[in-house]
Amino acid sequence: IAHIYPNSETPVKALDPRAAALDTFERRHMGPSEKDQLEMLKTIGFESLDELVTSTVPANIRLEEPMELGSHTSAAMSETEALSLLRSMADKNKVLKSLIGQGYNETHTPYVILRNMLENPGWYTAYTPYQAEISQGRLEMLLNYQTLVTELTGMEMANASLLDEATAAAEAMSMCVALSKNGKKKGAMTFFADAQCHPQTIAVVKTRCEALGIDVVVGDATSADLGDACIGVLWQYPNTRGDVVGDAAGVSARAHDAGALSVVAADPLALTLLPAPGTFGADICVGSMQRYGVPMGFGGPHAAYMATSEKYARRMPGRIIGETVEANERKGRALRMAMQTREQHIRRDKATSNICTAQALLANMAAAYAIYHGPDGLQDIARRCLGLAKAASSALNKAGIQASEPAFDTIVVKCDSASIAEKAEKAGFNLRVFGPDEVGLSFGETVTREDLVSILEDVFGVDAGDVDALADTSSVKGRNNLLPHAVFNTHKSESQMLRYLKQLEDKDLALNHSMISLGSCTMKLNATAEMIPVTWPEFSDVHPFAPREQTDGYVEMIASLNADLCKITGFDAVSVQPNSGASGEYAGLLAIRAYQQSIGEGHRNVCLIPVSAHGTNPASAVMAGLKCVIVKSDDDGNIDLEDFKAKAEKHKDNLSAIMVTYPSTYGVFEETITDLTRITHECGGQVYMDGANLNAQCGLTSPGTCGADVCHLNMHKTFCIPHGGGGPGVGAIGVNAHLAPFLPGHTVTAVDASTGDSRGSESAVAAAPYGSSLILPISWMYIKMLGAQGLARASAIAILNANYMAKRLEDAYSVLFRGANGQCAHEFIIDLREFKKAGVVEEDVAKRLQDYGFHSPTMSWPVPGTLMIEPTESEDRAELDRFCDALLAIRAEIKDVEDGAVKLEDSPLHHAPHTMDDVVTDDWDRAYSRETAAFPLPYVKDSKFWPTVGRVDNVHGDRHLICTCPPVSVYEE
Amino acid sequence: IAHIYPNSETPVKALDPRAAALDTFERRHMGPSEKDQLEMLKTIGFESLDELVTSTVPANIRLEEPMELGSHTSAAMSETEALSLLRSMADKNKVLKSLIGQGYNETHTPYVILRNMLENPGWYTAYTPYQAEISQGRLEMLLNYQTLVTELTGMEMANASLLDEATAAAEAMSMCVALSKNGKKKGAMTFFADAQCHPQTIAVVKTRCEALGIDVVVGDATSADLGDACIGVLWQYPNTRGDVVGDAAGVSARAHDAGALSVVAADPLALTLLPAPGTFGADICVGSMQRYGVPMGFGGPHAAYMATSEKYARRMPGRIIGETVEANERKGRALRMAMQTREQHIRRDKATSNICTAQALLANMAAAYAIYHGPDGLQDIARRCLGLAKAASSALNKAGIQASEPAFDTIVVKCDSASIAEKAEKAGFNLRVFGPDEVGLSFGETVTREDLVSILEDVFGVDAGDVDALADTSSVKGRNNLLPHAVFNTHKSESQMLRYLKQLEDKDLALNHSMISLGSCTMKLNATAEMIPVTWPEFSDVHPFAPREQTDGYVEMIASLNADLCKITGFDAVSVQPNSGASGEYAGLLAIRAYQQSIGEGHRNVCLIPVSAHGTNPASAVMAGLKCVIVKSDDDGNIDLEDFKAKAEKHKDNLSAIMVTYPSTYGVFEETITDLTRITHECGGQVYMDGANLNAQCGLTSPGTCGADVCHLNMHKTFCIPHGGGGPGVGAIGVNAHLAPFLPGHTVTAVDASTGDSRGSESAVAAAPYGSSLILPISWMYIKMLGAQGLARASAIAILNANYMAKRLEDAYSVLFRGANGQCAHEFIIDLREFKKAGVVEEDVAKRLQDYGFHSPTMSWPVPGTLMIEPTESEDRAELDRFCDALLAIRAEIKDVEDGAVKLEDSPLHHAPHTMDDVVTDDWDRAYSRETAAFPLPYVKDSKFWPTVGRVDNVHGDRHLICTCPPVSVYEE
Ligand SMILES: Cc1ncc(COP(=O)(O)O)c(C=O)c1O
Ligand SMILES: Cc1ncc(COP(=O)(O)O)c(C=O)c1O
Ligand SMILES: O=C([O-])O
Repeated sequence: IAHIYPNSETPVKALDPRAAALDTFERRHMGPSEKDQLEMLKTIGFESLDELVTSTVPANIRLEEPMELGSHTSAAMSETEALSLLRSMADKNKVLKSLIGQGYNETHTPYVILRNMLENPGWYTAYTPYQAEISQGRLEMLLNYQTLVTELTGMEMANASLLDEATAAAEAMSMCVALSKNGKKKGAMTFFADAQCHPQTIAVVKTRCEALGIDVVVGDATSADLGDACIGVLWQYPNTRGDVVGDAAGVSARAHDAGALSVVAADPLALTLLPAPGTFGADICVGSMQRYGVPMGFGGPHAAYMATSEKYARRMPGRIIGETVEANERKGRALRMAMQTREQHIRRDKATSNICTAQALLANMAAAYAIYHGPDGLQDIARRCLGLAKAASSALNKAGIQASEPAFDTIVVKCDSASIAEKAEKAGFNLRVFGPDEVGLSFGETVTREDLVSILEDVFGVDAGDVDALADTSSVKGRNNLLPHAVFNTHKSESQMLRYLKQLEDKDLALNHSMISLGSCTMKLNATAEMIPVTWPEFSDVHPFAPREQTDGYVEMIASLNADLCKITGFDAVSVQPNSGASGEYAGLLAIRAYQQSIGEGHRNVCLIPVSAHGTNPASAVMAGLKCVIVKSDDDGNIDLEDFKAKAEKHKDNLSAIMVTYPSTYGVFEETITDLTRITHECGGQVYMDGANLNAQCGLTSPGTCGADVCHLNMHKTFCIPHGGGGPGVGAIGVNAHLAPFLPGHTVTAVDASTGDSRGSESAVAAAPYGSSLILPISWMYIKMLGAQGLARASAIAILNANYMAKRLEDAYSVLFRGANGQCAHEFIIDLREFKKAGVVEEDVAKRLQDYGFHSPTMSWPVPGTLMIEPTESEDRAELDRFCDALLAIRAEIKDVEDGAVKLEDSPLHHAPHTMDDVVTDDWDRAYSRETAAFPLPYVKDSKFWPTVGRVDNVHGDRHLICTCPPVSVYEE
Repeated sequence: IAHIYPNSETPVKALDPRAAALDTFERRHMGPSEKDQLEMLKTIGFESLDELVTSTVPANIRLEEPMELGSHTSAAMSETEALSLLRSMADKNKVLKSLIGQGYNETHTPYVILRNMLENPGWYTAYTPYQAEISQGRLEMLLNYQTLVTELTGMEMANASLLDEATAAAEAMSMCVALSKNGKKKGAMTFFADAQCHPQTIAVVKTRCEALGIDVVVGDATSADLGDACIGVLWQYPNTRGDVVGDAAGVSARAHDAGALSVVAADPLALTLLPAPGTFGADICVGSMQRYGVPMGFGGPHAAYMATSEKYARRMPGRIIGETVEANERKGRALRMAMQTREQHIRRDKATSNICTAQALLANMAAAYAIYHGPDGLQDIARRCLGLAKAASSALNKAGIQASEPAFDTIVVKCDSASIAEKAEKAGFNLRVFGPDEVGLSFGETVTREDLVSILEDVFGVDAGDVDALADTSSVKGRNNLLPHAVFNTHKSESQMLRYLKQLEDKDLALNHSMISLGSCTMKLNATAEMIPVTWPEFSDVHPFAPREQTDGYVEMIASLNADLCKITGFDAVSVQPNSGASGEYAGLLAIRAYQQSIGEGHRNVCLIPVSAHGTNPASAVMAGLKCVIVKSDDDGNIDLEDFKAKAEKHKDNLSAIMVTYPSTYGVFEETITDLTRITHECGGQVYMDGANLNAQCGLTSPGTCGADVCHLNMHKTFCIPHGGGGPGVGAIGVNAHLAPFLPGHTVTAVDASTGDSRGSESAVAAAPYGSSLILPISWMYIKMLGAQGLARASAIAILNANYMAKRLEDAYSVLFRGANGQCAHEFIIDLREFKKAGVVEEDVAKRLQDYGFHSPTMSWPVPGTLMIEPTESEDRAELDRFCDALLAIRAEIKDVEDGAVKLEDSPLHHAPHTMDDVVTDDWDRAYSRETAAFPLPYVKDSKFWPTVGRVDNVHGDRHLICTCPPVSVYEE
């Protein structure tokens, strides 16, 4: 079929830039050359890509017509064309200096961090640090981040980031459910939110509470009667108007007295000056680290933090980096992910949080910012913000305009807000409008003296006077002994910072070194051209609540992206608001619930979930207020259709939804998918498709074609947003028309109709109207540069690559689960359980792969004792071959053990990975050679990647939870 | 003195962004914190920086007043301020699509190369690959480059780049002087240049010939009588009008018949289609690689290439990368600089070329571009250019407008050029104006179909017709079997390219890993903020011959830079045209010569040069037509004043100039500098100062203050332009008023008066009016962000760092040459000659330093058997200490040998550097441990840098010159 493979009859358009056919984006994005594709097809027994696809994708869901895109053109654009079209959109954004505040402030990203971290594939193409030994760089930076948060908040421990401040507050609320003494009285629980929290935070908490049947009471936390059902009190510090309550300890005490927890949403820059929440009884502290050097980007991505006390550690959602030791004799210090979304794995349907992908890259940027500035520098910046606010307040009051006394960077001014905002805009500033007669001004790092004078004189028409004197903050000491750790007091020159970043980067295996074939994660190329617009100021410097007239460019780009995604998914509407796949699941299930409520079916509360589902699925279902019912799999890895039918039938009256991943998490295009969707609909349920595996579908089939009603897209998988070492992500959701009115809305800015319908404020699932807007251009570029045909070919080649590898490996390993005609989809599982009897476990193989220069595939998920391999279309044949060679060589090493030729303790498998330390040591006492340890195949030497620590000791790490940098006393030795 | 060290009384301007005092650029640029500075001062016996400076810089040249800058403000700007001021200038450049051609074409820099090479400190902060074992990455890429050039030209060998096409042609002319049979008849020599060469090339050749007394004859190379004094024939292929002579072999034959060499200036993109110059008798081939992915940048920097036959190899100027073997048992393949500016080192005053810094980074970009596109891709691009030109020509001719038939990408059209150029500009295009009734159109890679249609319809008012059919080039086969080497046929996907670039980068030690204390090279921080504007399209996409009205931004920036440099140097005028320090020397000496001619002193032709001078000095003098007379040094490393006086006196009547480096190449502030300048002037000579060491002078003294008349500034040393692994560079020259009229001019664009006076076309020393304009923003940013005081402090801290290190090392090593009060300047020399009796030579120390993670200081220059250490102000104390610790540990290793405790062959010194291969081998038979080999001090393990090959065998490399990639047959095994 012509739409899958280039037709040789296609006339060459000699002058078309795309006719320089060898320099198409498609050619750059795909790994195997056309020649290699043909040879690989031959290896697996096919003549053409299309034949392979026909044999792999069930006929009943195969697209009948070539896919088209929804905006501009379906044809592929060159890098230049796509960038210039995008540039024309970017230019429609009007970038004013934003003093809106409300959780978002302008900040300087130090250039050394910008170029060497945010724009550096060594940092942005890494995955979540599952393989600790080759991830010590970002693990160290995340530990720095946790230490920073812990110190700023005065709490005992912090996690390695959450999605945004608003969802972090919602996560805190969920912790309160579990932790509060009042939690028992379910159904009757209330959650109190101070009225002076940021409105988007209250909105997101409300959305979350509503699904759980928890009442949110909004009022004055210093005085309201909390009642006896209150599980938590959320309050902002300084609050959204810039004030700090007089008796902070009193608020916490009142919460505690009521049996509730005190949840403080605090500004981390203010915390360099103001007393830490830990000193006034906070139980959980959350906030946004955006102003620590991360561009506003129209709302995201940024890292949110969460900190709590040690006793609540195991209730904290998200990932926590912790210290452990090497499992070898050395017992050297090593870092690892100590905890992550535990409940999802352990108590799936009891999970209280669905967080998975977080904001690692942005957390790392924030940590780097703090390291570069150091405690003195941070306090310097904070003092300037305070000084500006003070000067503004004084000058205004002196001129008879009533302005609040700032606790930190924000003041509220009485005035005719409409006319003042208009004058401000003319002078180049955005202010916050609080109503007809108040505006807010938040002074961030980038505000200059000249800006202040202009605001006073041009906007308010008052005499600026001696602003320097008015801004004097010399008496403001700030917190004592802040951040005494060496790392925050060392890297002060740019050379030092550059080298520190480089030193960490070098410890981490990322896509710029070799393939990362993590099944279900789709670690494809993150092309440079896609990354270019991310750091255009026209995208990065826009406040999420900037007046709508200033954001035409963003809205146009998002509308274009959504239109394309509609075509790709076969749906009618899309929302890009969710900040991760898991958030998308939650948002999608909420849409289903709201729809069902709207048609009088609000009682439907059962969610069918296949046993093979990702842990986020049941967790999201719980968060959406659903009861999970698990559906079995058959031996071929398919959903057990009989079990499914029985359960659907049984829960018919209350069936809300089924969640199904397609192709399945086992990497199979299940033939029964249309039966499944049909039966679900017959039983009155809706079909939620988990789109993590969409990379096998694009242009070949679609969620819509399969009969799904809603689907989330991990844009950080299929659509090229880099994983950043554990986030950011975008979990856009697509829906059928009947669900469109129930897509997430927003309380501050109406979500534009052209970009997805809104159902108003109570439905927001993220702090910003369009979520992580700043990284959407990445996906937009990808789609535009591949075009409709290219997208289809990407899926086809992803399938080809997986099948080629499966073929190469199948004699050595048993490949589990294949489709009806014997093909896997875009990923496949190899079974290692048979080696267990020889003592070799999956971890041995995963760690040994590091010696061969490779990141392990997904380990023990979805099937324990297996590896799931997903090469993606971007890996070339030679790389696939090297990886297969490595796995085959490892198989031979296993065989030596199986045969008894080598004892397990004498096998390199057992000791893997091997560090420099290991092989350079003077007392080598292994049964195998050092060269076998470090250079097991010839190609390895060409670009040896050294794990920096030996195999980490997980048990030790779990038993001794240390998740901040070593205390300063360590350095004092 | 307040201008050296911050006065504690300085009032803090609380709101000034700079008042966030901890985040000034100065703080980021300097290595040692203020606290460390004070402690280091104490270590060397001073109370303050100013006291150190007073004791170091002779009083009679110390600036009396604080230095000021010449433009905007003398105060330091923040990164943001400086960038926004520069942005306002950039916005004044008007970026049109340039079809001017004439040696410069628009090109797409593939983003993967842009981000991972041009914007990546791992590539741009490396130095010339003097230490081969830790430079195999860029050596490999340069070998790729040489292979590319060799293949394209069909010549036997190529060098690793020259400065630009015009100077490359002049270098070729110099080769002709040495190689032509007619060379003997000196004085009577002529050099023939075809009139259809690019005019800027002819101009630069003329400048060069004039100084040497060689007549340039411009005419028709296909027919002119060459006479019997002709040493070479330079002709362009395709020529500047886009034509190719019918009988190419005939032109070469005529040259050969006349006893001259055939020098072909060829377009490397055209060479993918047209027959190679090697096939028609070319002896030397030169050209610009700009259109291989390097932005035009208003003229530079770009790599020029030179290729010749093997028999002329040792006459080829510049650096050549060659293959050799490891000196160890392994004898593995290794790369090194096989030859470089040999004459400068060996036959100093007989040198025919002064080339030193070249264009490594740009050559590497060009090679990467060719690798990414591959032979097919390059031919594809070339065919498109040809197709566009053909279509334009056909459509115009069809419409009755006379247009030439293109040989490649360029056509000449008969028309009213003024009105057509105006229409073109309106439509967004720049054309080349050949006179009142001709315009030229060169179609580069970026021209689109729409552009062509617009040019035909909007500019020429003709019907575009079926341009696709007109552009058909399917019959143009292009050259057969072009670039068959594996490297040009492998890295086709972006992932592959990314990994290849990363793999090479990882082999090279650059400033992002550790200090590179190369004396005389000033390897200071190249700050990211300085690099940011380099890739702004408003700077990078400007054609050097764009109409003057379009380049206001550039001219304003350059004028500002020049004004600042005047203040810094104490001079009256500056030219930034020279593309390297050595070019600056040559330009400066030419200015002196022209001045002397203008006052009737044209007979003055003696140049005094201290024996300690850098090899480029005598070479430049020779090129300027001067006779070198060498002046001795005394035992303290100072110029022997008696010898100097005697020689100045002796040559009084013919004394043209003295060249003096200050502080001296020995790192000493000679007290006698003012005597020397005075006496020179008294003898009627001019003082040329080599400003390579200006980093010790800024704001403390100045060339002008010392009495110099002219000085070149290595902007790639003092003013932060990164060395790029061996270039680019800018060798701006500053002059006193009387020399200002003799600064280099330009033949195409008048050099703007505000940016340096012009003396017209015959005085150009580079192809582009402002040389390497694109990298001037780097220096501009540096100066603006440090401000006048910061510049002074940079010099003071550079002096502090050097003296601190000298102090730490002086008990272990003898430190040669210090100033009157016992201080060195910004660098110092340690003597290793005393270890020779124990068999330990300087190379052992240099290579052993690699095991400690450091790049060796400058080895055996200016004094054989020594190391010259220049830390620069950007290195922090801990880094200085680590380096000193390494040298002290090495000293202990030397002592073991001296003492007989360890035999030389048993010492790690002898076997250094140690590769992974070495220490991981199973048969380790050394007397020391593997750990001693690889991790000789504890800090090394934290970020081990592995040399990728063992010590290279220089002798083998010299004997077996292999300077292209292995032939394809190698891969066929
Ligand atoms: C099948 C599946 N569903 C959902 C998710 C959750 O996505 P996210 O990590 O973006 O929240 C994942 C993540 O890997 C996944 O593999
Ligand atoms: C003292 C001295 N003069 C001149 C030069 C030549 O400068 P360039 O390499 O820029 O041509 C150098 C180069 O290092 C040098 O050290
Ligand atoms: O390149 C140098 O001569 O330092």
